[in-house]
Amino acid sequence: MKKNAVVGQSGGPTAVINASLYGTVYEALNREDEIGTVYGMINGIEGFLNDQVMDMAPLEESKELELIRTTPGSYLGSCRYKLPEDLNDPVYPQLFARFEAYNIGYFFYIGGNDSMDTVSKLSRYAEKISSDIRVIGIPKTIDNDLVETDHTPGFGSAAKYVASTVREIAIDASVYDNKKSVTIVEIMGRHAGWLTAASALARKFEHDNPVLIYLPETDFDQDAFIEKVRTSLETTPNLVVCISEGIHDNTGTFICEYSNDVGTDTFGHKMLTGSGKYLENLVKERLGVKVRSVELNVCQRCSSSMLSKTDQKEAIASGAYGVKAALNGASGKMVAFERLDGDDYQIDYVLKDVNVICNQEKCVPATWITADGSDVTEDFIRYARPLIQGEVTVPTEDGVPKFAYRK
Amino acid sequence: MKKNAVVGQSGGPTAVINASLYGTVYEALNREDEIGTVYGMINGIEGFLNDQVMDMAPLEESKELELIRTTPGSYLGSCRYKLPEDLNDPVYPQLFARFEAYNIGYFFYIGGNDSMDTVSKLSRYAEKISSDIRVIGIPKTIDNDLVETDHTPGFGSAAKYVASTVREIAIDASVYDNKKSVTIVEIMGRHAGWLTAASALARKFEHDNPVLIYLPETDFDQDAFIEKVRTSLETTPNLVVCISEGIHDNTGTFICEYSNDVGTDTFGHKMLTGSGKYLENLVKERLGVKVRSVELNVCQRCSSSMLSKTDQKEAIASGAYGVKAALNGASGKMVAFERLDGDDYQIDYVLKDVNVICNQEKCVPATWITADGSDVTEDFIRYARPLIQGEVTVPTEDGVPKFAYRK
Repeated sequence: MKKNAVVGQSGGPTAVINASLYGTVYEALNREDEIGTVYGMINGIEGFLNDQVMDMAPLEESKELELIRTTPGSYLGSCRYKLPEDLNDPVYPQLFARFEAYNIGYFFYIGGNDSMDTVSKLSRYAEKISSDIRVIGIPKTIDNDLVETDHTPGFGSAAKYVASTVREIAIDASVYDNKKSVTIVEIMGRHAGWLTAASALARKFEHDNPVLIYLPETDFDQDAFIEKVRTSLETTPNLVVCISEGIHDNTGTFICEYSNDVGTDTFGHKMLTGSGKYLENLVKERLGVKVRSVELNVCQRCSSSMLSKTDQKEAIASGAYGVKAALNGASGKMVAFERLDGDDYQIDYVLKDVNVICNQEKCVPATWITADGSDVTEDFIRYARPLIQGEVTVPTEDGVPKFAYRK
Repeated sequence: MKKNAVVGQSGGPTAVINASLYGTVYEALNREDEIGTVYGMINGIEGFLNDQVMDMAPLEESKELELIRTTPGSYLGSCRYKLPEDLNDPVYPQLFARFEAYNIGYFFYIGGNDSMDTVSKLSRYAEKISSDIRVIGIPKTIDNDLVETDHTPGFGSAAKYVASTVREIAIDASVYDNKKSVTIVEIMGRHAGWLTAASALARKFEHDNPVLIYLPETDFDQDAFIEKVRTSLETTPNLVVCISEGIHDNTGTFICEYSNDVGTDTFGHKMLTGSGKYLENLVKERLGVKVRSVELNVCQRCSSSMLSKTDQKEAIASGAYGVKAALNGASGKMVAFERLDGDDYQIDYVLKDVNVICNQEKCVPATWITADGSDVTEDFIRYARPLIQGEVTVPTEDGVPKFAYRK
């Protein structure tokens, strides 16, 4: 008897996490000789535990599946549910009883570090109890911080959004170009500065903005920063500075903690906000110039207007590749990208051991950051440029983008 | 001898203020029988006083002019320079001596309230000294707060950005739909809530977000707000609330002043920020739900990714109409829009007395706001919907939008 498949989404959404869902579902529905029903789990593993599942086949018939490709957010809903470390916890037999009830043979989970932790634990538990269920991770994260892969789906579109928006903010900031000004743009990224680094892709000419870029990979020094701003204003009177939300000093204290109380999320991560606001006040106080701070906020991960065609294509392909891998017997693996050598950008899809990936973070290499920590190098730009190429036309309705909604 | 023309931009930029510039310059260059050189003034009237002008003809030859149509920001640079009230001030003869030196017969100024103040003063001074220079205002403002016109270029694109972005934020906020949450979106608008009201165009179904919309046209009551949020969460568990930056209580105190120091700009306007942040903390404290605030910030006025085709077309046409009007002898007028009756949206371009327009603000009519001040009515939606229609493809280069830059 054919086994069924189930797919879920977990963690923060991206502009293409639904493109990955599309790729997974489309491929699974087209392998009807090998796969029975294709289920979506609502709100990830947490919803699945409560029997929240939907049949995905009607979406293909209603053309809704096509619309999912360009819909931001997580179509199936998400969760931030961490499975217990102890594989003897009663939640595991509970979950596998649900798998049994739905006759699940293939489990696909689209997400980042924390979701790969779920994939790791489920695959280890399956092995422990000799279940033949195949558990596959499909990568996504705007943070681009997964190890063992050249990059992750979601990063390219977020990077394109950041580069384009910083380009526009720089134009906006330059309209009073007879007066000095500083604009500080705060970009997502707790420990990995990939997305902030992508703001370098906005530059069009020498001394063009953003002139200064600060990542959490290096220690941030307030005095050096102020001095750098002062000298940069001499060549670029309307200065744009991009900073990661997670910049911190050499004691590990986040800059936003200088002025703010911070809370923690369910994974114990500090919730950061306000480095930009803090530095805005600092620059105003120390240099007396006009200064503004802009927090790009959730638009970085949910904007459909700056979808990278390359990113979307790879997200779809990685979902489909995951299905093929599971049918070939793989389990406990994540779909990863290997960049091929050569002048033209090209990647290979491969499988990597999810146990090596989960709970690790890949940072921007030190050699891709300038010695004084205020910029990225050409190596980074060569790496990131191909990932933001190509535009996607999003269907519209009544003047706003048309998206798919779960009924 | 043919007279020359000069065009300038003033005040905050919009996504289509350069489309108006394009329309003005294109039309003026094509009236070569009547107009000599077409000059652009750099940084508005302030730059013009310092002889900062450029010849616009080479832009048409180099195809740069076409690119200006989709470039946000003010191509010519801007200023916030207020001419003295006293027409006997020495700056007036100084300015008119510059007009004389450049043989200017036609003066076009693209801007909002404050810029129309400049148009008013210059035209009155011209009359006073019997100068035959013709002074015409071309409207622009994302705030849509100019009187005597159905709407203003810049509003449609900003409204499209707001509606689309709020749509995306609502999708992003709903991914954890098994847990209640509140997202507060702070939108530009000091005294007029047009742009915040445009967030209503994001709605797609009953109880859809944004469920609550607060404009500065009504007094804001904290307790009523909290109660409204509490009851709305029952039907919409992931609630999105849109507020104008300028919401205030019944004593006229801005909500952001409850927690912030505020400064003033050169026109004496209070610089507002932080109502969203304040309400974020209030909701957290009073209701204990997950809450986040998002400030849309300058992207509202500088995003090229959400250009309204209707807005762009009208911006170009109003620039061209201004040139025709000046050649027909008009002065001291602003180009305005009259909406024609009928089922299909259609406007007429007309001229209005700039003296009536300047330094006034048009607010959202009370009848277009619900009685409890937490939403707009269908009348507003019928008014605003046509203004965000149609998409514009912006040329790209290396994965980011390609813009025109002043050399």
